[in-house]
Formats: sequence, C-alpha cells, structure tokens
Amino acid sequence: MHAAIEHAHRDRDAAVERLLALLAIPSVSTQSEHADDIRSAASLLAERMRTAGLTGVRVDETEGHPVVYGERMVDDGRPTVLIYGHYDVQPPDPLALWTTPPFEPRVVDDVVFARGAADDKGQLSAHLEAIAAWHAVGGTPTNVKVFLEGEEEIGSPNLGAWLRTHASELQADVAVISDSAMIARGTPSIVYGLRGLAYMEVIARGPNQDLHSGLYGGAVLNPAGALARIIAGLQGEDGRVTIPGFYDRVRPLDDDERAELAAVPFDTTSFSKAAGRAAGWGEAGFSLKERIGARPSLDVNGLVSGWTGEGAKTVLPSSATAKISMRLVPDQDPGEIARLFEQHVRALAPEGLTIEVRSMTGAWPAVCPRDIPAMRAAESAYEVGFGRAPVFTREGGSIPVVADMAEILGLPTVLMGFGLPDDNLHAPNEKFELGQFFGGIDTCIAFHAALAEAHGTS
Amino acid sequence: MHAAIEHAHRDRDAAVERLLALLAIPSVSTQSEHADDIRSAASLLAERMRTAGLTGVRVDETEGHPVVYGERMVDDGRPTVLIYGHYDVQPPDPLALWTTPPFEPRVVDDVVFARGAADDKGQLSAHLEAIAAWHAVGGTPTNVKVFLEGEEEIGSPNLGAWLRTHASELQADVAVISDSAMIARGTPSIVYGLRGLAYMEVIARGPNQDLHSGLYGGAVLNPAGALARIIAGLQGEDGRVTIPGFYDRVRPLDDDERAELAAVPFDTTSFSKAAGRAAGWGEAGFSLKERIGARPSLDVNGLVSGWTGEGAKTVLPSSATAKISMRLVPDQDPGEIARLFEQHVRALAPEGLTIEVRSMTGAWPAVCPRDIPAMRAAESAYEVGFGRAPVFTREGGSIPVVADMAEILGLPTVLMGFGLPDDNLHAPNEKFELGQFFGGIDTCIAFHAALAEAHGTS
Repeated sequence: MHAAIEHAHRDRDAAVERLLALLAIPSVSTQSEHADDIRSAASLLAERMRTAGLTGVRVDETEGHPVVYGERMVDDGRPTVLIYGHYDVQPPDPLALWTTPPFEPRVVDDVVFARGAADDKGQLSAHLEAIAAWHAVGGTPTNVKVFLEGEEEIGSPNLGAWLRTHASELQADVAVISDSAMIARGTPSIVYGLRGLAYMEVIARGPNQDLHSGLYGGAVLNPAGALARIIAGLQGEDGRVTIPGFYDRVRPLDDDERAELAAVPFDTTSFSKAAGRAAGWGEAGFSLKERIGARPSLDVNGLVSGWTGEGAKTVLPSSATAKISMRLVPDQDPGEIARLFEQHVRALAPEGLTIEVRSMTGAWPAVCPRDIPAMRAAESAYEVGFGRAPVFTREGGSIPVVADMAEILGLPTVLMGFGLPDDNLHAPNEKFELGQFFGGIDTCIAFHAALAEAHGTS
Repeated sequence: MHAAIEHAHRDRDAAVERLLALLAIPSVSTQSEHADDIRSAASLLAERMRTAGLTGVRVDETEGHPVVYGERMVDDGRPTVLIYGHYDVQPPDPLALWTTPPFEPRVVDDVVFARGAADDKGQLSAHLEAIAAWHAVGGTPTNVKVFLEGEEEIGSPNLGAWLRTHASELQADVAVISDSAMIARGTPSIVYGLRGLAYMEVIARGPNQDLHSGLYGGAVLNPAGALARIIAGLQGEDGRVTIPGFYDRVRPLDDDERAELAAVPFDTTSFSKAAGRAAGWGEAGFSLKERIGARPSLDVNGLVSGWTGEGAKTVLPSSATAKISMRLVPDQDPGEIARLFEQHVRALAPEGLTIEVRSMTGAWPAVCPRDIPAMRAAESAYEVGFGRAPVFTREGGSIPVVADMAEILGLPTVLMGFGLPDDNLHAPNEKFELGQFFGGIDTCIAFHAALAEAHGTS
C-alpha cells in the first residue's frame, strides 16, 4: 500500500492534468445536443481504464448513453469490489454566473473549477488514479470491477436494464460509490442514508393561443395564475407537503437515530453562506440535519410562462409549465408518490385548464448497512487519506443506483464521498479541491488494502 | 368626398404595398436591439406624411423613441382633428407559433399577416391613406394634425412630456384614435370606455445562488414555491382580486349602463375560439362583457425561475420572477393600485425572501363623452365605410394616450377602431383584413367631410 501511495504522490501533477482533460468535455446528459460529448467522455474513460491495468474494457451501448466497464480479476479467494461512478454532468446554466467557463477547467489556489469537478468526474477519477497507482506497483490486492454510467443526472433510466443483463458478471462483495460530500474540510464522513426522488413536470394549458390581456383579461382563466394556485396547494408555508398520503410510508425517526444525527458535526457556515436569508426555513419539529437527510421535501425546480424577456408584454399566456421534484425517505415509493402528486394536482386544477402531468425521473430512497467488513475497511482508509476516522451521516441527495445495487445485485454499498458541502453541485462555479482529490486517491488506495486485510487476504 | 373615395379605391393595391413595407420593419419598442428599426419606421412615416400633403413634418426626439408629427392647416374657421397612432409593435414571441415570419408580411386570401398588422400600423395607415386621397383631390375639408408615437407598447413613458411641451401647437376640436376593434365583421362599433393598466414585476430572491435540491431541499426557502404562494394570494379562484383596497374606487355599473352593454352584439364565437376551454371564467355576478370592459382584472403575464430547458435539473433556484398586470376601470388610480399591490405582495412574502417590486407601466382608465359633434360625424362616417351605424361599447384594453388627451390637451377622443376581435393582437399570427383596411380608409375619408359638415364648414 505504501508503495502505491508513494507512486500516487509522485504522479499528482499528471493526475490533475488527466482530470482537467476529462472536465473539458461537456458531457451534459439531459441535452441531446451533447450526445457526441457523452461518447467522447466514455471513450476517454475506457482508455484510462486500460492504462490503469483493467482488462476486458468495453463501452456498452444502452437505449440511452453508454456504460463503460472494466475489471481486474486477481484471485477468486480475494474480496471483490464493484466501483460505480458517472461521467455525465448537469447543464451549466445560468452561464452568466460562472467566473470561468464551465467547460474550460481552471485550477485557482489548488481548487479546480468546472462543471462536474466534484459531481462526479473528480471523485470517479480518484478511484481510477488509485487503481493506476496499484497497477504501477504490481496491482490491487482485491478483485476490482468498475462501471461508469452516462445518465445519472437524468435519473439513470437505462441502468437498471444494464445491471440486470450483467448481473452475474457484476457479482462482488460490496459496491463502492464516491459521489457525495464529506461533512466538512478535515471531517471525513460516510453517508449511509440517501433520499429518493420523484421529479415531475406539470403543464397547464388554458386559451388556445397567447391572448391580449386587455381584451381578454378578467374573462379568461390565466394558466400561469392557476398554476401558481396549484403549486400553492402542494405544501404549507413551512414546506410541509399537503399531498394526501405523502407521509403515509415515511419511517419515523427513532430517538437513537435523532441523537446520533444531532451529534454529527455540520458545517453551518458553508450552509448559511450558500442559502443566505433563505436558510432557517423548513418543516416544524425537525432539525436542519433531519430536514435535509431524514425528511422528505418538495421543491419547484423550474417555472416558465408567457413573457420572460425585457420590459412589459401584456400577454395572457396560453400555457404555463412547472418542474417540481420531491425528495423521498424510506419507505416512500417513487412510483406511488408520482401517482399521489398527479391525483392532487388534478384535484387542485380548476375547470378550464387542461393539465398534463409527466413523471420525469424516480429513485428509491436507500439506507446502507453499517455492520459489514467493507464499512470498517472504509473507516480505516479515511484515516490513511484524511487522518481521521469518518462519522456516519444521512444526506439529502439521491443516488438511484444504490437502491439498484441492493435490489438487482444484492449488494451493500459504501458511499465514500470526497466532496465538500460548498462544492456548488448543480450550480455555477462547481469546484473540487485538490486536497480532497489527493486525499481521495490515498483513501481509495488504502481501501483496497484494508478490504483485503478484512477478508484475511492481504 | 366622393372624389377622394374614388381615388382611394383606384389606389388600393398601392396602399396595400405601402402597408406591407411598413409592417416589414420590426419596430419592437420593448427590446433595445430594435432601436434602429424604430427609427426606420419613424423615417418612413415622416416621408408618407409629406407625400400625403402634410407640412411641417418632423421626427421629434424624446427620452425614448421619437414622435413623428405633421399637419395641414386649411383655415382657422374649420374644425381641427388631432389624429394619433403608434408605429411600435409588441415582440413577436413565441416565434415557433407563427405560420409565416412576423416581419415578412404576407397577404393570404385578402388578410395581411404580420406583427403590428392591426395594432397599430394597419389602422394608422388607414388615416394616412385617407389624408393622401383627400390631398389628391384638393385636400381635407378640415384642419389636420397627426402625431405617431413609438412607445405605446411599453406604456408611453415619454408621451406625456412631449404633449405638455407641444400643448398649444396641438390644440384641436377632437382627437381621433384608431387602435381598437369593431365588435364583429360587419358590425362597426365605437369604444367609449377603456381600462387602465398597472403593470408590475416581482422578483423574489432566496438563496445566494442556485442550490442542489437534494442537498438543501427541505431546509431552504424555495423562491419559486414562495412566489407561487404570493401569486395565489392576489386573487381568488374566480379572479376576484384580493388586494386590500383594490375595488375602493371602482365606479359601480348602474342599471342603464348594464342594460346598454348587454344589448351590444358580441362575437362569442371568435372569443370562444381564441379562449378555448379557458373561456367562461371570471368574477361572479358579472357578464362576460362587463368582466372585459367594465370590471378590473389581474393577470400573470410572465413567470420564470430555475430550470426551464429540456429534461430534469434538480436545482433549488436562487430567484423567481413574475410579471403581473392589472387592468383598471374608472376611478382607479394606477399609481395607487401599484402601491396597494406592492404592500400586499410584501405582506404575503415569508421571512427569508428578498422581494423587489417594480412598477413598469401605468395608464389611467378613460371614458369618452358621447354627445359631441365629432361622435356624430364618426357615426355617419362608419355608415359610409361599413354600411352601418356603429354601436357604442367599452373595451378591456388600455390606450393611455386617451387619458393624456383629456388631462393635458383638454380634448375629447373618438376611438374609431377598424380591427376585429380575432386579429391576434399581442399573439402569434396577428392579422388585419383588407376589407377592414379599405373600409377604414373610406370611413376616415368620410369622417373629415362629416366633421366639417357638423361644424357648418363643408
């Protein structure tokens, strides 16, 4: 292990260059104009896997964007780790708020700025760099399987089918994903709970065309106003969701878990800096950490209707659209929540509107087991990489593949995150700090050693 | 008069060509990128005025877009008519819904399709063609003053100052505006009541930047959701405005006026075709015609926040913007309504939002006198142009200059409209029918004769 870590330390400048090259590819999965960029990123990663000593490397087609796969099988007696990452990124909008262009990555004061820096290109690169370092000194002490998908940011619509097709090939002892954040700089953490997601689009259609608000206003139902009233009927002032049945399957937090969550350190400074005046809001009776990690939520992600340009246009719009998503906790079912949402929207809609409700993406919430050898291996690996044992916490985001790993492959997952809470995920000026990248590489290197040791095969 | 009408009939093809040339100029007043087009339209109209025999033609600068002025002074003993029009147009968006490009005017089956065809380039052209026809046979029997502004669609912010500066030069017996619609094809009408306008923009700001809805959702106030709840607090399900004090100055409709409005024919077929399922909505206790013409209303004209592109983006937006306008009736004061609106929005806004409320344009409601010689002249002119005497009605739109004419110049206004209710004003595929254009030219020609006769100077 020490030889691999020494090698990685000598190779840091080159590792940063490799990360920047990957970040320069605008592999935005939600926009069809970037389909070629997605393919370029997949090809580059396949080449990286080969260089890192993985074999059987291939780019698998799916109904959507491809999956890149490679493996290193040492010995059936050794533990096998299945590593997942995603090479697609969120759209960079609003572009005007970026200090440097999102796909022209820059390193400023040991911080990499680019779309995808932390989510997830920087974190998946830590794994590839660790495997490459082991390869330079003789290879990992574990069996390794790596798969990287290109549709995480659009809800992984084709990953389930790919996992089912390759289920026997993907058999392993544990899955590892690095696509989350540590609690704070210097405070490593392992996320053991993730929220699920039900992402909906509501289109309210009224008049057959845009109308003059003077000639028709007061006698024609305005779909933008009506949609606002529908949205207002989805949650209370404090955010508590008012969709009937929404909370029926929510597992109550017991006192032990509340106490444990309360003890986890939390970077309120970063949180408040990002949230500004809008912090301090949320469902009555729950702490900030509970609201984010252990309670479901509903957010309007986008709104558009009528005239959105400069100045005044007296239009009575023909339609209005909202994107609305709900974060879910065990045991909420994203399909059921989507149905309850649609029922309630239709119940709130007035006569005179034609309502279209589309379910765009769904993901199950997940809670990972904490009493397995891989979890202990991850704990000791963080001590090597960041000098401290991690704390265990729950996070508000969704990583749909965690539920798929459990359901389709029967695998527990260890979420070994190297990001920071202020990395501006899905926002302008996304960043990944080099200290986190280098610590992440060392942690990944140490994990293979610790996992082999935990299985008595080091 | 007959000679002028005969001349106009012979000149119809050329008049259509002149209208198309004017419509080809994208003189959109609300978008600064069209400033040069505004100037081109003003220059073209100044040239038309000169050709029509007007003198002292000039393009007056203002703080915004220029005013084009010209006159024909025959004799102090004759009545003087002040003709107003506007050469600016609404933005053409959404472009995708136009059958032909908005600034490449086409004549299809005797209908001109283009942005501004009816509002107001086609209607102001009817006046210029009428003056030109009189010029060809010796000149109008009236004194004529014409002024054309370039800021009507943005609320005429600089017209008041221009009118005040030129008040003595603009003295006349009556003002005439053709910027409204007849009730139906074959049913001429004179609008004697117009609604006012208070157009507001509300910007709700929450977090300091766009956030990841998973990492922050449930613990940070979402400005898009909050803005929806604010909008929902502005009016009831039936559109009745819930802003305290909003109705305090609304003049009640008396039984006579209600009976008279009820007797006016109304093209419910065109109305229903445009409004679709959204028709049949409005304030309880009032008829459709009352809701449009004699009651105030509130409409959301535009909404934008967060992700509005293709697919799903799990963003918790940092801000949300709504454009909201209210149509006013006598004796509502647009300045007072703007203040009441802002107060109520601030009262509805939750802690954690920074709210900006901007008053974008305002216009007073107006009711025109019906017992003046010019009104009788207009009645007989419609009989010449359209074969029927007009009915009198109230309209939902706003023509701010009507209130300015009364207040600054002390002038009554006759609203001699030649449009039709289905002309798609402010909407895709705006049109002006050639039958309306030709009938409008004849009506304008006849109006000068009838006004001179009413004053005993024909």
